[in-house]
Amino acid sequence: MQKRPLILVTNDDGITAPGIRTLISVMNEIGDVIVIAPDSPQSGMGHAITLDSTIYCDAVTIDEGPQLEYRCSGTPADCVKMAISEILNKKPDLCVSGVNHGANSSINVIYSGTMSAAVEAGIEGIPAIGFSLLDYSWNAKFDHLKKHIKSLALNVLERGLPDGVVLNVNFPKIAGDDFKGIKICRQARANWVEEFDKRVNPQGKEYYWLTGKFINLDRGEDTDLWALNNNYIAVVPVGFDLTAHHFLPSLNNWKL
Amino acid sequence: MQKRPLILVTNDDGITAPGIRTLISVMNEIGDVIVIAPDSPQSGMGHAITLDSTIYCDAVTIDEGPQLEYRCSGTPADCVKMAISEILNKKPDLCVSGVNHGANSSINVIYSGTMSAAVEAGIEGIPAIGFSLLDYSWNAKFDHLKKHIKSLALNVLERGLPDGVVLNVNFPKIAGDDFKGIKICRQARANWVEEFDKRVNPQGKEYYWLTGKFINLDRGEDTDLWALNNNYIAVVPVGFDLTAHHFLPSLNNWKL
Repeated sequence: MQKRPLILVTNDDGITAPGIRTLISVMNEIGDVIVIAPDSPQSGMGHAITLDSTIYCDAVTIDEGPQLEYRCSGTPADCVKMAISEILNKKPDLCVSGVNHGANSSINVIYSGTMSAAVEAGIEGIPAIGFSLLDYSWNAKFDHLKKHIKSLALNVLERGLPDGVVLNVNFPKIAGDDFKGIKICRQARANWVEEFDKRVNPQGKEYYWLTGKFINLDRGEDTDLWALNNNYIAVVPVGFDLTAHHFLPSLNNWKL
Repeated sequence: MQKRPLILVTNDDGITAPGIRTLISVMNEIGDVIVIAPDSPQSGMGHAITLDSTIYCDAVTIDEGPQLEYRCSGTPADCVKMAISEILNKKPDLCVSGVNHGANSSINVIYSGTMSAAVEAGIEGIPAIGFSLLDYSWNAKFDHLKKHIKSLALNVLERGLPDGVVLNVNFPKIAGDDFKGIKICRQARANWVEEFDKRVNPQGKEYYWLTGKFINLDRGEDTDLWALNNNYIAVVPVGFDLTAHHFLPSLNNWKL
């Protein structure tokens, strides 16, 4: 890559989250940075888009640095659409999303606003990476991730990604920088067993909070959960052709 | 299947939408029906779940029939979680979602609340089908779909679906019942080119509406878009292992 790349940065925890501030500081070392991120937390938004409501998008200054920043009232996927169609006058060379405060490994990729932004960029033909740290705390430590984020971003800028593929990168929560290395993985087969916490509101009406336990059903040592449990940085290539190709022949035999 | 199956019905257009009322009437012919559906339209919600807010879920009667019904303030994915963890005392034999007012073919499967409900059921190990009609009108005609919906549901109940696979069924909009047949398809590679409609609110502040044009980039005759354009009912088997398995070997060669 000859000239400085144009890099779009977004997330789902909101534009002021420490995770995205870390990501911005790393991307400023690599290229020209535009940030378009939600004005409020959007965790669990999946690939939601705003169809029936209005979207605001305003230039803001959050902290010092060369980046240009916009805060957007929409979802993470909206932010990427807004960036590409309205704010930027050329296609970015890279889109990075995160660093998410909390895991987006395994089935969580489906619920994740962080990854939906990366996937949305991928749909638009932009190389994209979602980054997440297995630490939900607002005050999580991100500094030790910087060199790994920079290396992964430079690799993707240099090599590109095939059409229809983005990367999902999860960092284990460990003290210091004692990562065992980077593992290329598949998404583990795991799911949530929900437990709704039923309560009664001050008006006497029942309501619920969604809670749950995460259950790993997958014993494979080639999965993101295995890698994270063994202190590796997990990198999963993620696609958005949801066709279950392996089942096409059998389904054809149903003679519907 | 010996005894009457237990069938969970949901959607994303809301519990009073004509599309779900059609689906309920067909399922009442096949099994014991429980409806848990959003209390308001949830189109474009993708796989969003409610993490930071409360959820209400109340028994209601919308129209006559043997079905039990609950309206839920959450997303389509929340409705399925609520059904399985809180309302039902056994796992349903089938989950059907829809009939959506509008297409969920191609990349729209990612944005679709209808399909996210079916996928959520699939994650929970329940055979599931999402149904959509290529007609956004609230007053769309659904009666001519009934025999096809019944046949597909009976086939899935009889044969089951493999772990990790649900069905995405789209009906073309044609006059009468002149479907050419059912085509088993893959998801077409297509996307939206967004055009944000920029306006000024009464307080003088700029805001946007998300609009766009749908572009088919895929010339294949084995896609859902080809089938629908040629008056076939399109059936795509959909998975939720998003790993881009074909790119794993190349990514390993990056030696990260």
